[in-house]
Amino acid sequence: MDRYKITSGSKFQLSDIDPDDTSLFDGGKKEGRKVLDEELNPRLEELQDLLYAEGKRRVLIVLQGMDTSGKDGVIRGVFNAVDPLGIRVASFKVPTAEELAHDYLWRIHKQVPGNGEIVIFNRSHYEDVLVVRVHKIVPKAVWSRRYDQINEFEKTLTDTGTKVVKFFLHISKDEQKARLEERRDTPEKRWKFSLGDLEERKLWDDYQVAYQDVIRKTSTDWAPWHVIPANAKWYRNWVIANVLVETLESLDMKYPPAPKGAETAVIE
Amino acid sequence: MDRYKITSGSKFQLSDIDPDDTSLFDGGKKEGRKVLDEELNPRLEELQDLLYAEGKRRVLIVLQGMDTSGKDGVIRGVFNAVDPLGIRVASFKVPTAEELAHDYLWRIHKQVPGNGEIVIFNRSHYEDVLVVRVHKIVPKAVWSRRYDQINEFEKTLTDTGTKVVKFFLHISKDEQKARLEERRDTPEKRWKFSLGDLEERKLWDDYQVAYQDVIRKTSTDWAPWHVIPANAKWYRNWVIANVLVETLESLDMKYPPAPKGAETAVIE
Repeated sequence: MDRYKITSGSKFQLSDIDPDDTSLFDGGKKEGRKVLDEELNPRLEELQDLLYAEGKRRVLIVLQGMDTSGKDGVIRGVFNAVDPLGIRVASFKVPTAEELAHDYLWRIHKQVPGNGEIVIFNRSHYEDVLVVRVHKIVPKAVWSRRYDQINEFEKTLTDTGTKVVKFFLHISKDEQKARLEERRDTPEKRWKFSLGDLEERKLWDDYQVAYQDVIRKTSTDWAPWHVIPANAKWYRNWVIANVLVETLESLDMKYPPAPKGAETAVIE
Repeated sequence: MDRYKITSGSKFQLSDIDPDDTSLFDGGKKEGRKVLDEELNPRLEELQDLLYAEGKRRVLIVLQGMDTSGKDGVIRGVFNAVDPLGIRVASFKVPTAEELAHDYLWRIHKQVPGNGEIVIFNRSHYEDVLVVRVHKIVPKAVWSRRYDQINEFEKTLTDTGTKVVKFFLHISKDEQKARLEERRDTPEKRWKFSLGDLEERKLWDDYQVAYQDVIRKTSTDWAPWHVIPANAKWYRNWVIANVLVETLESLDMKYPPAPKGAETAVIE
């Protein structure tokens, strides 16, 4: 899965990765889903159980992408076999008055995982160099310093026992059009349709530049970005599940030993 | 499922309900699991999606029971088909110094569900009239006033839009013995074995009295207890899933209307 991992991003171009790519999987949608359901999701469930049992490591998954890129779909498609006990989703929306009265990492830090926990960030601190930049909510002098601050923040998390795994769900502008049209034209999905999304779509190019800069400036050794081709939903889920299985396996976790005397304890 | 719902508890006896009971299901373990997997869990997933979409109601599920009674098993068995986006587990362990520096409902109130959310309490404020009572951590004059406080707290939650659903997982003392022995004798489970659990087991009768009082004094019209026969794990999950499906269906939820102009919006 190294194809999509950006470790040193200084020259990265979004056009390096085709949103339509499905080349790492030998087969189509039906086979891809089958592997996900029957192999990857159950394996993730086992690894989550081990993480929870061991109770030492923490895993932070960051999901970013344009509207309709599939952040909710990844949560549903990749994690819904996992025990709800060991996983938590933190969704970051427009900041509240209390959140705005603090630095932008304050609300983020409150939500990072504890021992044995997997936390999924549905949007994240990266909005503070994306929507905030595109809509000029703070001056460039402010947001442009955030890349280093974010890198340092993630370095501290990593050094203190948290594995940070970041995914950018990469869709094309045409694919977003098709998904918005589907949302508009399907009665049961129409409630999700927001006219505000159309205004955001007009800023597509600005967002792409902002995302490219994010990936260039915050792809570090300790917390690389994974740029996931996301036009095909099944492939997006298959790649992400693979990255997570590889990541969790690389932690080389072990079930904790039994407490002394457990084996011979008499239960009355 | 009204058999197990205690609405007016003043004369309730734990012995009224047999932990071995499986009488409401016409069939055995295999058929029960099939109904759960193929009908109840998918229906819960739909109802959770509707709750999330509507974004108005909140659901708080309280799980209580003796050690090994299956609180974790319910979370895994009943909820693991549900989208992690709309569900959250709050586990209440030994209070921290900061929590102890506040009233006992402080840490509880922080974790109640928001709009469109289902929150599962894995243990709860009821520990403050259970373990706290059995171990004499505070005097009777203090804990005995908590039943009314808890009823009022849950009344306020209910009146302000939260559905409170409480389950006591009712196992027998023999069943606990069998489960502790299995934990002791299965190498992959032995790490969960705690010698402290054996000390707690010695207080079985005190806990049963304390639970009976909880059910007598806090089974209210707005937040009744459900006393679930829990010796058979499949039946426990089947009953709880049924109660939740009935509860969520009774909320008569609807998908929100599409925003004005959505249907005819032009996507460029």
